[in-house]
Amino acid sequence: MNGLFITFEGPEGAGKTTVIQRLAKDFSNELNILLTREPGGISIAEQIRAVILDCDNTKMDARTEALLYAAARRQHLVEKVLPALEKGSIVLCDRFIDSSLAYQGYARGLGIDEILKINEFATQKHMPNLTIYFDVEPEEGLRRIAANNNREINRLDEETIDFHYKVRKGYHLVMEKFKNRCVLVDASKDLESVYEEVKAIFIQTIKENFQK
Amino acid sequence: MNGLFITFEGPEGAGKTTVIQRLAKDFSNELNILLTREPGGISIAEQIRAVILDCDNTKMDARTEALLYAAARRQHLVEKVLPALEKGSIVLCDRFIDSSLAYQGYARGLGIDEILKINEFATQKHMPNLTIYFDVEPEEGLRRIAANNNREINRLDEETIDFHYKVRKGYHLVMEKFKNRCVLVDASKDLESVYEEVKAIFIQTIKENFQK
Repeated sequence: MNGLFITFEGPEGAGKTTVIQRLAKDFSNELNILLTREPGGISIAEQIRAVILDCDNTKMDARTEALLYAAARRQHLVEKVLPALEKGSIVLCDRFIDSSLAYQGYARGLGIDEILKINEFATQKHMPNLTIYFDVEPEEGLRRIAANNNREINRLDEETIDFHYKVRKGYHLVMEKFKNRCVLVDASKDLESVYEEVKAIFIQTIKENFQK
Repeated sequence: MNGLFITFEGPEGAGKTTVIQRLAKDFSNELNILLTREPGGISIAEQIRAVILDCDNTKMDARTEALLYAAARRQHLVEKVLPALEKGSIVLCDRFIDSSLAYQGYARGLGIDEILKINEFATQKHMPNLTIYFDVEPEEGLRRIAANNNREINRLDEETIDFHYKVRKGYHLVMEKFKNRCVLVDASKDLESVYEEVKAIFIQTIKENFQK
C-alpha cells in the first residue's frame, strides 16, 4: 500500500467530524486526501446500515448487529478505502474497527477478542497506520449532541448513560491493546485546541511516513 | 435443550423442500414440528436476505456475503429456532451452517475453517442434532430447477456450472468433517425413494433421542 490509512474514533459529540472536515480542507491543496466514513456511500453498505439503524429493529440481537457492522465495513474497505490507498491517497476515516471493539465488544459484552476475530475476517488484517481517539466524558458528548439541532437521532443515541460509560471504558482498553497505532486526544478542551493537537499529530505522521 | 434440531442441506433442485414439507405434514399429528428456513419470516433476517439476493448487488464481495448470511442466521436462530427447541419442538430447518461452509467456505474459496469461525460466533456453537444432505449431480439439480416454473431465479442460480461442482465438493468435505451428525442421501433417485429413505432416518433419530 502506498497511501496512509488514518482512522478517527470516539463517541458522538466528541467533535471528530468537525475536526476531520477541517483537516481535509486545510490540507487538500498539498495532499491527496480521501475523507470518508462507513458506509461511505457504498450502495451495499448503505443498505446494511439502514437495517442496523432502523429504530423499529428493537429485537436485534447484539451478535447480529456486530456481524452487520463487519459486513458493511468489509464492503466499504474493498470498494473505497483500499483502492484509494493503492493510488497513494491519505484516507481519513470517521470510525473503523475500534468502534466495533468498544461498542459491541466491550459495551455490549460480546468480548473485545471475539469481535476482533470477526473483524479480522472482514478486514483481512488491513489495520490503520494511525488511530486518533477523541476522549470525552459521556455527559459532555451527549450535551453537545443535544445542542446540535442538525443531527438526526438514531438507535444508538437512545442507549442509557451507563452504556456510554461502558463505551468509553471499552475505548480505553482498545487504545491500550493497540497502543502502537493509537493516540488519545483530550476532546473535552475547546475545539480550537483539539484541532491544533490533531493537526500536529497528523503532520508528524505524514513526515514520518513519507520521509522513509 | 429439550427439542431436536434437524437441518437439510444440498443444492437447489435436489428435492429438499418437497421432502421436508411432506415429512412435516405426515408427522404433524404425532409430533410437535416446526418447519422453517432462513430467514424464516424474521423481519430483520428478511431485510438482510433482501440485500444478499438483490441481483443488482453484483459488486458484493464474498466476505461481505458470508458475514450477511451469518447475521441473518443468528437472528433466525435466536428469534425462532432456539425458542422452539426450548419448548421441546422438532425443528426441521431447510439449510443452516453447512450451506455457508460449502458455498462461501469452499466454492467461493474463503476457507471452510474461516467460515466456520464466523458462524460459530453467530450460533454460539448451537449445532444441529442431525443433518441430512441431499446429494445430486449439479446438472440434474439445474435440470429440475429449469423444469419448475413456480420458482423465481435468484443471484446464486446465475452462477456457472463450475461453481455448482465446487459446491458439491464442498458439501462432501463438510459431511466428512462433521460425520457424527451428518447423513448423505442419494437424491438422484426418484422422489418417492428419497422420501422413504429420509423418513426412515427421521424415525430412527426420533426413537434414539426420545428413548433416552
